[in-house]
Amino acid sequence: MADQSFSLACPIPIAEYPEVQMAHGGGGRLMRALIEKMFMAAFRNPFLEARHDGAVFPSPGKTLATTTDAFVVRPLFFPGGNIGTLAVHGTVNDLAMCGARPVYLTAAFVLEEGLPMETLWRVAAAMGEAAREAGVAIVSGDTKVVERGKGDGVYIATAGVGVVEHRLDIAPRAVRPGDAVILSGDIGRHGMAVLGARESLGFESSIESDCAPLWPAVDSLLRAGLEVHCLRDLTRGGLATAAAEIAADAGVAIRVAERTIPVREDVGGACELLGLDPLYVANEGRFVAFVPRSQAARALEVLRGVPVSAGAVEIGAVAPAPQGMAVLESAIGSERVLDLLSGEQLPRIC
Amino acid sequence: MADQSFSLACPIPIAEYPEVQMAHGGGGRLMRALIEKMFMAAFRNPFLEARHDGAVFPSPGKTLATTTDAFVVRPLFFPGGNIGTLAVHGTVNDLAMCGARPVYLTAAFVLEEGLPMETLWRVAAAMGEAAREAGVAIVSGDTKVVERGKGDGVYIATAGVGVVEHRLDIAPRAVRPGDAVILSGDIGRHGMAVLGARESLGFESSIESDCAPLWPAVDSLLRAGLEVHCLRDLTRGGLATAAAEIAADAGVAIRVAERTIPVREDVGGACELLGLDPLYVANEGRFVAFVPRSQAARALEVLRGVPVSAGAVEIGAVAPAPQGMAVLESAIGSERVLDLLSGEQLPRIC
Repeated sequence: MADQSFSLACPIPIAEYPEVQMAHGGGGRLMRALIEKMFMAAFRNPFLEARHDGAVFPSPGKTLATTTDAFVVRPLFFPGGNIGTLAVHGTVNDLAMCGARPVYLTAAFVLEEGLPMETLWRVAAAMGEAAREAGVAIVSGDTKVVERGKGDGVYIATAGVGVVEHRLDIAPRAVRPGDAVILSGDIGRHGMAVLGARESLGFESSIESDCAPLWPAVDSLLRAGLEVHCLRDLTRGGLATAAAEIAADAGVAIRVAERTIPVREDVGGACELLGLDPLYVANEGRFVAFVPRSQAARALEVLRGVPVSAGAVEIGAVAPAPQGMAVLESAIGSERVLDLLSGEQLPRIC
Repeated sequence: MADQSFSLACPIPIAEYPEVQMAHGGGGRLMRALIEKMFMAAFRNPFLEARHDGAVFPSPGKTLATTTDAFVVRPLFFPGGNIGTLAVHGTVNDLAMCGARPVYLTAAFVLEEGLPMETLWRVAAAMGEAAREAGVAIVSGDTKVVERGKGDGVYIATAGVGVVEHRLDIAPRAVRPGDAVILSGDIGRHGMAVLGARESLGFESSIESDCAPLWPAVDSLLRAGLEVHCLRDLTRGGLATAAAEIAADAGVAIRVAERTIPVREDVGGACELLGLDPLYVANEGRFVAFVPRSQAARALEVLRGVPVSAGAVEIGAVAPAPQGMAVLESAIGSERVLDLLSGEQLPRIC
């Protein structure tokens, strides 16, 4: 997707500045060159041209949404994406989960001294590409540099502003017994793609991250006039954590059937190898939608018409009890509670 | 200022979790406890109660502003503030410099494994306090944890949404020959306060950071109906860099008189000791305003009526030439160009 940008040469002269230096964050000549030549080139839009402390814009609507995410994924590049694409998709997806069309992003960088300039350019170019693909403008930014050993290449925090153009209350509190639970596609690919890219793991895989913008899928549900009660993307903690959290926050039971949940064979195999449960593995392009049961078939039809949610399936339903709990019904008929993890499963997956 | 919050006990049981662990960023039980008990307690507002991926709110006006900043200041605590107060003031000040009233903030944390939980609480409590003081709500957040040696305690990225309630174009492009340059108070205190707090420097000082929200000062200028052309807070690179950048971006000359620029005696002395030029030292509660010369006296009067800008002075004027340059007229009548720094003066000052 971002391959075309990657082939453009790094606009900072590599021979002169092969690596990020402390002075690139110092507010002087080097920082200005970094902003002008790299970030403005990668993100190009009229807001950045104003060269001001922030971006001023007409409000995109009467009801807005805002959100933020920090990204510390390791390694920076993995099959199907990198920290830059993730930093765009992660925040536009959080806006989409509020039912908001993503409009503007901001980006703050914490760079480690010694980061290859070429690496930073690949990340910035990928962010610019991902932003254009998602229909958002990166309108304001900031760059800080920390000493070697005080960071890990690059950390990025993005924040987003979106516009809510419907009258639904899309939130955990709107989930109620009788709702159908719809999953937008197969799970576990992002987490396994990132793990597979870690040399220390010593397992090779061809699994690509599902990292993608989810707004087109949400937009299609809203345009179809469906009464969406809640949306949640399945990032850290995966499907299981999303179900457990929403059940707790909504005070309902969420029952899902294991056999209906799509997990690709290679993903399932890699999970088994590493002793991981795919239900808890992070995704960056998957979400669950809660809609009234009467609208489930239509919701599936609509989602399947959008590439990012072509694999949508109904995986369960909301029930009144056991209140506050998510329950997995296994293929052999047994039940188990999907609880929040007590420890850490996959550090620095996003 | 934040002393009252600091005296409240850390809401995470220190005996059980004395330090931040990798699992506090893992999406499981510990992360949820951190968010619920610490951040929601420190930032308390109805948006966080929705427990959703983002915050939904009515647009605060027809014209909005957004901005972001990352904060990596070292050490985390210094006389007059800490990374938490800085993370709030830095972003609300960037909004104020767009002539926007700050309304909402988001906050993304990158925590280093091993950070004392008590330290995180002091930072979060200070942020909550600073936000309330500045009249903004921290409506959405994110927490990531990186391994020991991959961070430095805590990095924070904040983003802000503000509302523009005037019809002025406040930006470098609006600066023109004939404008007066007004400085809101004495310079150099933030940078010297942070440096003084670094043990490695071995100099003791009682200099307190000027870290403060600037919106009340900007608001007073706008309410007085003054035709503000540009505003710029004097952070990294200080007054000299702000003048050089605006001169370059506006294509004008900015001439300032050295003898009019207030530098406290202890600040000047510390700068001399360390071989620093106070004109390049960072401030976190100072700004310059460009207004038509005919309105300079009134602007000064208005600014002096607001505590944060009580020390406002006129320091110079905008001229047509030398185009794109900022020039300092010294006390003895010589002139020198204020250029962007080529190297790094003060790393990790904000």
